[in-house]
Amino acid sequence: MIELESYLQGAWVRGSGRATTLVNPSTEAPIATSNTEGLDFGAALAHARDVGGPALRAMSFAARGEMLRALSRCIHAHRDELIGLAIENGGNTRGDAKFDIDGASLTLAAYADVAAELAKEAPNGTVLLDGVALPLGRSPRLVGAHISVPREGVAVHINAFNFPAWGLAEKAAVALCAGVPVVSKPASSTALVSHRIVRLWVEEKLLPAGALSFIAGSPGDLLKHLRGQDVLAFTGAGTTGSHLRAEHAVREHSVRINVEADSLNAAVLGPDVGDDSEVMNLFVGDVVRDMTQKTGQKCTAIRRVYVPADKVATVLERLRERLADIKVGDPSREDVGMGPLATAQQLADVRAGVAKLAGHGKAVFGSADPLHEKGYFISPVLLHAERPDPGDAVHNHEVFGPVATVMPYSDAADAVKWVAAGGGGLVSSVYSDDKAFVRSAVLGIAPYHGRVTVGSSKIAAQAVPPGTVLAPLVHGGPGRAGSGEELGGRRGLAFYMQRVALQGDRALLEMISGQREEKA
Amino acid sequence: MIELESYLQGAWVRGSGRATTLVNPSTEAPIATSNTEGLDFGAALAHARDVGGPALRAMSFAARGEMLRALSRCIHAHRDELIGLAIENGGNTRGDAKFDIDGASLTLAAYADVAAELAKEAPNGTVLLDGVALPLGRSPRLVGAHISVPREGVAVHINAFNFPAWGLAEKAAVALCAGVPVVSKPASSTALVSHRIVRLWVEEKLLPAGALSFIAGSPGDLLKHLRGQDVLAFTGAGTTGSHLRAEHAVREHSVRINVEADSLNAAVLGPDVGDDSEVMNLFVGDVVRDMTQKTGQKCTAIRRVYVPADKVATVLERLRERLADIKVGDPSREDVGMGPLATAQQLADVRAGVAKLAGHGKAVFGSADPLHEKGYFISPVLLHAERPDPGDAVHNHEVFGPVATVMPYSDAADAVKWVAAGGGGLVSSVYSDDKAFVRSAVLGIAPYHGRVTVGSSKIAAQAVPPGTVLAPLVHGGPGRAGSGEELGGRRGLAFYMQRVALQGDRALLEMISGQREEKA
Repeated sequence: MIELESYLQGAWVRGSGRATTLVNPSTEAPIATSNTEGLDFGAALAHARDVGGPALRAMSFAARGEMLRALSRCIHAHRDELIGLAIENGGNTRGDAKFDIDGASLTLAAYADVAAELAKEAPNGTVLLDGVALPLGRSPRLVGAHISVPREGVAVHINAFNFPAWGLAEKAAVALCAGVPVVSKPASSTALVSHRIVRLWVEEKLLPAGALSFIAGSPGDLLKHLRGQDVLAFTGAGTTGSHLRAEHAVREHSVRINVEADSLNAAVLGPDVGDDSEVMNLFVGDVVRDMTQKTGQKCTAIRRVYVPADKVATVLERLRERLADIKVGDPSREDVGMGPLATAQQLADVRAGVAKLAGHGKAVFGSADPLHEKGYFISPVLLHAERPDPGDAVHNHEVFGPVATVMPYSDAADAVKWVAAGGGGLVSSVYSDDKAFVRSAVLGIAPYHGRVTVGSSKIAAQAVPPGTVLAPLVHGGPGRAGSGEELGGRRGLAFYMQRVALQGDRALLEMISGQREEKA
Repeated sequence: MIELESYLQGAWVRGSGRATTLVNPSTEAPIATSNTEGLDFGAALAHARDVGGPALRAMSFAARGEMLRALSRCIHAHRDELIGLAIENGGNTRGDAKFDIDGASLTLAAYADVAAELAKEAPNGTVLLDGVALPLGRSPRLVGAHISVPREGVAVHINAFNFPAWGLAEKAAVALCAGVPVVSKPASSTALVSHRIVRLWVEEKLLPAGALSFIAGSPGDLLKHLRGQDVLAFTGAGTTGSHLRAEHAVREHSVRINVEADSLNAAVLGPDVGDDSEVMNLFVGDVVRDMTQKTGQKCTAIRRVYVPADKVATVLERLRERLADIKVGDPSREDVGMGPLATAQQLADVRAGVAKLAGHGKAVFGSADPLHEKGYFISPVLLHAERPDPGDAVHNHEVFGPVATVMPYSDAADAVKWVAAGGGGLVSSVYSDDKAFVRSAVLGIAPYHGRVTVGSSKIAAQAVPPGTVLAPLVHGGPGRAGSGEELGGRRGLAFYMQRVALQGDRALLEMISGQREEKA
């Protein structure tokens, strides 16, 4: 059995306490253990700050871009091996595994591009200009100007179990692009893939010393060592996010924190959409994909489906038909469309969650009962809630599995009210060609989201599904979703950098930021 | 005696419990009381969200700009009356009072200008575009674009005692510009000025119903009613900031929070600065101003003064000479340069703080002993620490009064090390004409600050002092300073708005954001 090690202070190390066991969720067979007890996380953070930070800051954006490109290529070069690990440890189908692993290499490549762009703009290769210089006095000589510089701390990344490759990469790409060293902690239960990626990066010497550390297992007292130049980015349950915010060191040192948490993402079908239209097919396809891709374990998956009251019967019928076609089982098989849930805990949580939802709606497809004696398999579960209420479980409890609820609405304002009742989400989608409806619905739900997709007939054939996070667009959402913001191209760098206003003689400030030679 | 009322749900109301008394810090005579016990803060927040929010969002940026202009003019029109109140309740000299009150009207005017600029850019008058549309698919039709929309919550502003006018205005200006209603709570002890300003604004009907509420006194259970679309901005002690972050509703609903807290702002004299140079005069003037303006009760005031070892004696001498010229006493008198501390608590805190500092340095001018039997008067206190230590009180404890410590440094790297030892600040300043020194020092301390000013001979005659916060430049700082960011022109709006990525057909997205007519 593999014993996963952590990579701290430039060495692979293992703890000395009781090990955690990783299993294959299809068979429940143990496949690896991890153990971090007794590891010195304070020293690990200090190493990242004192060795990794200066090394990254000494690299120009151009050099950081080349580094990110190499990280991306390394993942792609080992794609098949990683897909195998994702099937084994994550219960991923091949398609699920590609979504995670290709997402990782694509995001790293996207930030290689961002770094290359910034290299052209950053006058001395490392300092970013933020806007233009403004005159502050009577003469044009006295100005104020903003620059952004890397924070001199460490970025601690705590990732969720569902995307071991992409979660590692999407956070690390932005931090490394900004010049900030990373300590990455994947969820213990599915750490096999991220562990392997970091092994490959280390073996191929793609990163300067101290730029990336990796914790396979419990983070112990890691957070107690955070300081004022550090940042903390977390993806996972809202309750954990709330605990992280309460952490003494985080509050005491005003550690910047970014949280991506629970999200009751919605899909709204417009009143104009015909039963056999392209937009209807897009809508049905998106809902079914989000219910079943990664066995519904996707923070961006559609959980709530709002449909004009007179179309509910049709939509339920279409969804049931499509769900019935999806084979659930051994995810290594080509004909299987949905694998197991990732862990025993996930299975227990999804079963409890479906029971909650069933108090307000009726299951019209499937159930959360385990399908087999071994493995965490359930069928997709479609519910229908005829009379939803903003206080009900559908609007307040995220069931992180292959589960969605169909509900009726009357008009655009009503749809907006229902979507907003979710309390803030990562992404929702509106399907319609009715311009007035689209405008009202999208602007109405916009304040409650980090992203809104519009499915219309003109782009139906090429639409990117709402559940797919794209590096150039921001990812995050207000309220329940954690109030975070990641990615968005260069926008994501702000979290890792300090914006500072400079005030003084124009020539001197231009010399400082590198816009002017020192002799100026 | 005046009984201060709160303005909630469109009415002036008072609580029913034990009143807090406001005094004149020069005489300790009671001048007003405030009382908020039993007021319904939950209903007050709901009124702001449900009445003020829609009213502000219905206003275009152009209309919001006119509103802000009127708020600014109103303060200016009542300047003399407000100065009188600031002298009476704040212990301000006339100069101190103008700094606060003119700062308020100027900041409102600056955001009137920002709103007017945004009016030209926002295609439909209310939605802000964030960058350009990016192609997402094979055809140019499918794009992603970012817009910013006002959050649909309320902005709760909790301000410090030292700037009752500016504190109210600098936060409200940005929120109202963004289209978000405000509930403003000044420090109870000096609420007279902010109370009067809000009275004037309400009497002159300058704001739509629900756009601004005002709490004169304790905020009671206000924070328990915060929700996911709300934001919380706080200026004050770091310990209070830490408590606000721990507040259950803030964590539970991921309420956005901005904190401006303690800051051990530093001034660094370059090795090249001659004893009789313009830059030396600028430096000495800035230190003395920051020690004595507002009796040193300014979050941006210089607390730490780093000087080349061989210039310490000269600098101490120059500072002592200048401090000796400053008359401390009744702030209503024209010949007085420094009034009392604002409260009895402030006097106690400053005395305790000076005792802490004296453990590591020697007082070379003044003491924190009260000068008179009545009133919270002390002299400026200058300390000299020959052998500073990053762990000492000078680098870890902000004494919020007319107190600064002079310390030696060896070279630019050493100066950077000392400044950074403060753990993150709002602003620091570097005084030098030596380009290499300026570049090293400024870039070295930049990650630890929200603003850095450079005093050089070419701008010495017109320099804006480091202690002056300017609306176009960001205000805030990492770590000890709270990790916040306010102002900075349009940059400040981001806190009050939701940035959302839209994804879909280009023509449809342009119609949503108003770039294209609906018929398109």
